[in-house]
Amino acid sequence: MSGGMERQTALITALLERFGPRVVVMDEADIAPWLTDWRGRWHGRAAALLEPSSPDEVAAIVALATEHGVPLVPQGGNTSMVGGATPPADGSALLLSLRRMRRIRQMTEDHVVAEAGVILADLHAAAAERGRRFPLTLGSRGSCTVGGLTATNAGGTQVLRFGTMRSLVLGVEAVLPDGSVYDGLAPLKKDNRGYDLGELLIGSEGTLGAITAVSLKLVPAVHARAVAWVGLNSPQAGRDLLRLLERSTDRVEGFEILPAECLHAVLRHIPGTRAPLTSEHPWHALIEATATTTDDEAPAMLLERLLVQPLESGEIADAAISSSEGQAEAFWKIRDSISEAERAEGPAAQHDISVPVDTMPRFMVEAAEHVERAFPGTRASGYGHLGDGNIHFHVRAPAGSAREWAEGEGKAASRMVHDLVTAVGGSISAEHGIGQMKKDELARLSSPARMHALRSIKAALDPQRIFNPGKLID
Amino acid sequence: MSGGMERQTALITALLERFGPRVVVMDEADIAPWLTDWRGRWHGRAAALLEPSSPDEVAAIVALATEHGVPLVPQGGNTSMVGGATPPADGSALLLSLRRMRRIRQMTEDHVVAEAGVILADLHAAAAERGRRFPLTLGSRGSCTVGGLTATNAGGTQVLRFGTMRSLVLGVEAVLPDGSVYDGLAPLKKDNRGYDLGELLIGSEGTLGAITAVSLKLVPAVHARAVAWVGLNSPQAGRDLLRLLERSTDRVEGFEILPAECLHAVLRHIPGTRAPLTSEHPWHALIEATATTTDDEAPAMLLERLLVQPLESGEIADAAISSSEGQAEAFWKIRDSISEAERAEGPAAQHDISVPVDTMPRFMVEAAEHVERAFPGTRASGYGHLGDGNIHFHVRAPAGSAREWAEGEGKAASRMVHDLVTAVGGSISAEHGIGQMKKDELARLSSPARMHALRSIKAALDPQRIFNPGKLID
Repeated sequence: MSGGMERQTALITALLERFGPRVVVMDEADIAPWLTDWRGRWHGRAAALLEPSSPDEVAAIVALATEHGVPLVPQGGNTSMVGGATPPADGSALLLSLRRMRRIRQMTEDHVVAEAGVILADLHAAAAERGRRFPLTLGSRGSCTVGGLTATNAGGTQVLRFGTMRSLVLGVEAVLPDGSVYDGLAPLKKDNRGYDLGELLIGSEGTLGAITAVSLKLVPAVHARAVAWVGLNSPQAGRDLLRLLERSTDRVEGFEILPAECLHAVLRHIPGTRAPLTSEHPWHALIEATATTTDDEAPAMLLERLLVQPLESGEIADAAISSSEGQAEAFWKIRDSISEAERAEGPAAQHDISVPVDTMPRFMVEAAEHVERAFPGTRASGYGHLGDGNIHFHVRAPAGSAREWAEGEGKAASRMVHDLVTAVGGSISAEHGIGQMKKDELARLSSPARMHALRSIKAALDPQRIFNPGKLID
Repeated sequence: MSGGMERQTALITALLERFGPRVVVMDEADIAPWLTDWRGRWHGRAAALLEPSSPDEVAAIVALATEHGVPLVPQGGNTSMVGGATPPADGSALLLSLRRMRRIRQMTEDHVVAEAGVILADLHAAAAERGRRFPLTLGSRGSCTVGGLTATNAGGTQVLRFGTMRSLVLGVEAVLPDGSVYDGLAPLKKDNRGYDLGELLIGSEGTLGAITAVSLKLVPAVHARAVAWVGLNSPQAGRDLLRLLERSTDRVEGFEILPAECLHAVLRHIPGTRAPLTSEHPWHALIEATATTTDDEAPAMLLERLLVQPLESGEIADAAISSSEGQAEAFWKIRDSISEAERAEGPAAQHDISVPVDTMPRFMVEAAEHVERAFPGTRASGYGHLGDGNIHFHVRAPAGSAREWAEGEGKAASRMVHDLVTAVGGSISAEHGIGQMKKDELARLSSPARMHALRSIKAALDPQRIFNPGKLID
């Protein structure tokens, strides 16, 4: 370690010499906010925070870090859910912030070229100003950056129609571990020149290089939207309803599902919320439809028309359609408050999982039964993006459990959930990534063939292990 | 080499011992058809043709080949345009055919799991039988296989709406060079467990492993279609028209462009073809619109409605809309016959290139001028998938040139075309891949950073260079 610290001191000296304090931040108070993840679960140390403002500066930093053998932790908005952007606790790495690179280099009707540090909300605003839209959105949009979103292949609540970041990224510019700049920004719809490095960098969590800019797809702006709240008897009824909608329209942009207990938790803990339906149902769906032109049928009318038949046949139990933007927002507020409400209910083990969409309804019911039987007193249920086959599956501690439950029985329950997911071919990380949090589970549950391939790729592209040490497979 | 031949003999002996002649084909007459590419440009040799019928058999073959250090050339329908499936001329490799693996393992409304050897036309038929559709199609659909299509990220004339293979592949099963089976078939819409091996294998041209099965997306079947033939003054008028259509509908599934000289070549050389318009125009577009439900506006009416305004404003010069399926086919026949007609016109250098869609109209005009100026007497022009930013750019030899022109001035013209494409951030291989044909050009025109990364990945995953020697970057 002391050899490591000497190398680090030499690197910082070289960086200061080259760039000065504009790029090399040494003040502890300035560094402190970036050493802990936003939920306060992981804590790291770093002697310097590097803030380059161009790809060339990033390249020069990476080349020097490689020369000195000092690891770097790339960081965007620091909103990782899995400790993916927190530096190691031993202080062996420096922070490489991309936040200062926040130029929008180019915008056409079809795409935008944005630097890594552009904040998602700013991108939304810039696209809207041109009458277009970047469709992906999530809770941390005021802080998260397009570089981080790309490096983690982020998802969110509006993935159904336009997909995750992987579907929206048309090109990537990145600094590779050898300090070279890979320029793959040109938005080519067809390009078969060998292995797709852009696809490899998407979702690589900063372990193969630092993404410095991306070309992103833009889609038509939303002209109008409506949200339906539907009472259901089961997750399967939700899946059937989604399929019925998909057969008739491609204008459904969100389809979320939640059990009654999630709704009740929100009503109990979140001020200003009220039940959308007067009737009681074991499950609920929230469905958003949009119109992108004035020619389109009004979304509220579209939803009403499509829900008549399943209501009459009893496939769905009850439904309310938002009659104003305020009501649409009130419906979404319930969905977006589940996490906060559940925290107020007591300790829980949370899982961001995916399985094939058609498998999900059965999985939700059977996995909950399985876990509740194995850990008496717990309550298990899933909510979230049914249309993507991605739910957040929570196991709540028995009533009166202390916070420490999460570290003991909670961990055992998590392993069981991950085993059940793996058994049906699902993923233990649908949208949050692996980071530090799921590293051991990834190694435990992946086939040796897959782990060997991942490790070979990492070793080939980053032989000195410069990028994001201790994450994913390192 | 003789050491290589001894190893090969030992491998064949081991394979025969394990599998017998069912899998190990030694008869020269049975092997011969697979030693030459379908256009007769590349010729190879191979002592044996291996025909496994399960992933386990593929895995056992690969493990033995690795053990003996003998390369394998994976092969599907042998329809590569770039010599990508032809074995080396020195006989140092064996052919690994996936054609016997032709089971459709599973089909739901949303996806199908097909083994590598399933022929595209058979997949089309199987999907149609279920009332669904696999949207990608191309000329060789009666021979090409889903494994080959995936390994080359194939495109075709129907990419505009649903994308290339990369957009349609939901999961991949492959045997990696160490003989392990990577099972990534589960069709997960969200999955963030590290580097995406499926994305890496798509477009890898058999150099990183043998794809044994894929999960593919299915889309609604076509209920009705119509094709418009439009006279244009320039490629830019075509781009403007496409943008206008895209703003109003997502039901345009094909948008092809061709210059008058292509049309005239077809009318001269292909029996039974006639001009769709009575008027003369420098450029032409072929536009296909579809309906997937009975609720949809009839495609012919949709096209008529959307073409009224640009016709009235003079943005387009003339238009005819197919009034029957026979007429739609006649329009497509012109487009599909361009290659054959051009061959009858004399020697030409052909280029499968892409640039950003908005750059294409200007590129088509300027690149043609540039090449014709540099090589007096040549005629250069592009035709094809304007909506994908992908055209086939042909440079025809001066009148009276001998066939040998292609090897001399033709090659020099190709290098110029590739230089021009690279200068605007485009790709020298939009959909055909690199194979043997473009290997040198890839190395010449890629950044050192990119080539180093590609070679590192190959060396990491296939350290013994077992898979598809002499292709792509090997």
